[in-house]
Amino acid sequence: MPSIADGAPGDTPQRVQVDARINAPTDTPIDTPIDTPIDTPIDTPLGIICCGGTVPYAVADAAIRRGRKVVMFPLRGWADVSTVGAYSHHWIALGQFGRFCRLAHREGCRDIVLVGGLIRPSILQLRLDWGTLMQMPLLIRSFRGGDDHLLSGVARMLERDGFRVIGAHEVAPEITAPVGVLGRVSPGAAVEHDIEQGFALLAAMSAFDVGQAAVIAGRRVLAIEAAEGTDALLDRIAAMRAAGRITLPAGAGVLVKAPKRRQDRRFDLPSIGPNTIDRAARAGLAGIAVIGGATIVAEPQRLVEAADRAGMFVVGCLDAEAPK
Amino acid sequence: MPSIADGAPGDTPQRVQVDARINAPTDTPIDTPIDTPIDTPIDTPLGIICCGGTVPYAVADAAIRRGRKVVMFPLRGWADVSTVGAYSHHWIALGQFGRFCRLAHREGCRDIVLVGGLIRPSILQLRLDWGTLMQMPLLIRSFRGGDDHLLSGVARMLERDGFRVIGAHEVAPEITAPVGVLGRVSPGAAVEHDIEQGFALLAAMSAFDVGQAAVIAGRRVLAIEAAEGTDALLDRIAAMRAAGRITLPAGAGVLVKAPKRRQDRRFDLPSIGPNTIDRAARAGLAGIAVIGGATIVAEPQRLVEAADRAGMFVVGCLDAEAPK
Repeated sequence: MPSIADGAPGDTPQRVQVDARINAPTDTPIDTPIDTPIDTPIDTPLGIICCGGTVPYAVADAAIRRGRKVVMFPLRGWADVSTVGAYSHHWIALGQFGRFCRLAHREGCRDIVLVGGLIRPSILQLRLDWGTLMQMPLLIRSFRGGDDHLLSGVARMLERDGFRVIGAHEVAPEITAPVGVLGRVSPGAAVEHDIEQGFALLAAMSAFDVGQAAVIAGRRVLAIEAAEGTDALLDRIAAMRAAGRITLPAGAGVLVKAPKRRQDRRFDLPSIGPNTIDRAARAGLAGIAVIGGATIVAEPQRLVEAADRAGMFVVGCLDAEAPK
Repeated sequence: MPSIADGAPGDTPQRVQVDARINAPTDTPIDTPIDTPIDTPIDTPLGIICCGGTVPYAVADAAIRRGRKVVMFPLRGWADVSTVGAYSHHWIALGQFGRFCRLAHREGCRDIVLVGGLIRPSILQLRLDWGTLMQMPLLIRSFRGGDDHLLSGVARMLERDGFRVIGAHEVAPEITAPVGVLGRVSPGAAVEHDIEQGFALLAAMSAFDVGQAAVIAGRRVLAIEAAEGTDALLDRIAAMRAAGRITLPAGAGVLVKAPKRRQDRRFDLPSIGPNTIDRAARAGLAGIAVIGGATIVAEPQRLVEAADRAGMFVVGCLDAEAPK
């Protein structure tokens, strides 16, 4: 059986993603061409508002592979200066909504993707420009609530200005986890109940615009994510183990991540990367369960290698919300 | 208006509790005698299995004030050696179920209260004796699940042996928070929605035997408690503030605590104490909301003094689950 770890050096993330599907219980042939999944006017450049991490560049590369021009709008303080230099780009600061609209219209962008890690700013930290000030009532309302509420508000602002906001996974489905097992390790029957319980818990919390991740072990909920993020959640498990506050054998417990129910999936999809694996391994977990097609996988090849090395499973589960 | 902080030094916690009720929207006169709330054969000694913290001694004192004999069963490693010496007591180790039953029967105890802080042990850490081994199938099943599930299992073991397990708040209602404001600071209208949202979130998570506490600020859920406990939850808020991960003005955010819905309230009621106030103040919160009559208040006088000093509110809210 071909294995992801056997991939030649220099393979693109896209190749790994397709390989990962070999383990999935589907009939997708390896070399199926990737279709542009949404009805996108490919003759207009794609505008990517990019925050932290490597995912924005994976999205850009995927669009470019499909023959589309890309213009990056890196957020000052969040996007990586050295990586963004390889793309056509304009720096913007948080709150420079007017500057962004002006530049994006001038570049001929109609479709906009927001992608990458961003710690929620204070409304007072924004460097407001005139275009933003014009939208203040909506912006202030958007800041009162959860992240999904905030991002929906930003999307509404963009749409008022004539843009169309689309999801990173719509532009580049290959950056999301497939349904099935990634890597060599499969989840055992012992963790099935924990995975189900985790997804049910996250679904129950969705109405509160919170909770994209939790750790379950032996039918017991050990940790639930809110504003701290998944890294801190995993570090907490490691710390509780070290302090004897949780007393689990090594290799017990599952990190479960899922998008919020009825969430606008154009932004803020849950994501995992090699760093998630390393932290989950330090927390002594057995593996990670995500929703296939609705979870961004950053650097999938490195992620699968790290999981195989740690003896951890990573599994994409069927999406209960997917259209039948 | 009489204030709790004005109480003479040496006032008992009971006195403070009654004072606190002055602020509550009820007609309870200050000097209402405290009735024994459940039909307890007061001629048999009350057995108290006591873990960490000061609450077990408040419960013991309340029973003694009502003229009842008390026998303490301090858990080795958890209960405070110096404090327990003032009471009739027998040390037991975790897992010495047989020893406990023998001693409690010999003392003539029929009613048993389990109270105090206990970090969930590993089943492998128990020092099993013969009486425990006889109950292993039930014990093993009890360990697979949340804390409430575990404690229900322990209660069933005790009941099989002829004991009656009662709640600390049934023996000593004065150790629970009243309905109404404790201390000088009242919650403003601005936090009402956050308090409601917090209680609704905790209720939604109850089915998963998790979540007795959460922190909400400006309609956003900042942190949810699972195995780490309330202290760690509050420290996390302080750390996120320090790291700039949450950007709130000082004095924003509410800690909300509630018992799980349909939980067996004979054990594991949420509790707060002066330490909770100190940590919530360091986390920069505006106050704490609990369920009146269903939250244990450790050292109420010190708690109210700490809250007044920090300018924080502590409010007992109406219990949605209380019998009408």
